[in-house]
Amino acid sequence: MTTKGERTRESIIDASYALFAKKGFKQVTMKDVCDVTNMSRGGLYSHFSSTSQLFEALLEKMTERSETDIQEATGKGASALSILEESFASLEEETGHPEDSLSIAMLEYAQTVDAHVMEQLNRIGAEKWKKLIRYGIKRGEFKAVDADEIVNLILYSYQGVRMWSMVSPMKPEVYHSITENIKRQLIGETR
Amino acid sequence: MTTKGERTRESIIDASYALFAKKGFKQVTMKDVCDVTNMSRGGLYSHFSSTSQLFEALLEKMTERSETDIQEATGKGASALSILEESFASLEEETGHPEDSLSIAMLEYAQTVDAHVMEQLNRIGAEKWKKLIRYGIKRGEFKAVDADEIVNLILYSYQGVRMWSMVSPMKPEVYHSITENIKRQLIGETR
Repeated sequence: MTTKGERTRESIIDASYALFAKKGFKQVTMKDVCDVTNMSRGGLYSHFSSTSQLFEALLEKMTERSETDIQEATGKGASALSILEESFASLEEETGHPEDSLSIAMLEYAQTVDAHVMEQLNRIGAEKWKKLIRYGIKRGEFKAVDADEIVNLILYSYQGVRMWSMVSPMKPEVYHSITENIKRQLIGETR
Repeated sequence: MTTKGERTRESIIDASYALFAKKGFKQVTMKDVCDVTNMSRGGLYSHFSSTSQLFEALLEKMTERSETDIQEATGKGASALSILEESFASLEEETGHPEDSLSIAMLEYAQTVDAHVMEQLNRIGAEKWKKLIRYGIKRGEFKAVDADEIVNLILYSYQGVRMWSMVSPMKPEVYHSITENIKRQLIGETR
């Protein structure tokens, strides 16, 4: 059962997303969070003691959600290709809207925490893709690729695309060509 | 013929590399450049009017050099695979030494200039790889891949790797797996 306190905690996390996407991590203050959540300082501090703790909770929640989505889909026996296509579509969608992305906030946050916190987050992100690829191989939908290698390709190319799209506007064709390449490596030549 | 003025200009550019790699772009002052070059303010300003102009000249020089290397090698009829392997080796070498990399400086510099300056630089970087891939296809060494697609994969995955390696230490296996993947796409399955 979800208690009222837990619901409040969740709503603070949800409301802070737009704030971090817009201002990055460094420039967000606890006062900003009070403003967007209409909470008193005391109320907010009873849930989070700092923007750092709040941002960490936000990253955890996002990671968990994307894990859960994949787990549910594979649990229902959905086709690996359809899950892959959906995951790539979200990746492209997110990339097309850098103003809604947490990339800058994550980069700034990373500079304030121990490297292992970011490594841990990276590992969780990688696990999700690795599970999907192994699921596809097991179902015979994907070729017997090296899952680690393909996951590195997905994670780092999109990291680069996101970073570069903050520097100069990027055409969707550019990053779409990357997901197409990876998809072809997984399901075989289709053009 | 190279004049004394041109030689001085070149030596300023060369000496400033380590400075930008170490301090990024924003924190470098003209005074810092005077210090590392042992030049007077007046002497320095007769060549560059700002750190911005100096950094731009540095980026241009680096881009030209890597263009020239490829052009010389293809001009001599070197094998495309050997040029590719050398280029990947430099990429991996540079990635393994983030302290010698200009990535942070470039990111900071990008925020101060018009987007088209960075687009232009990106295009020049892409051209170099594209020429090499087309050269390999023409020589029958590489498969008939989509050169644009492979170039996007090379540029953005390494952009992502470099960015992430500033956030947390990265094992060479990780980025080596990416160059191996791309190499396999170019020359065909070899494992």
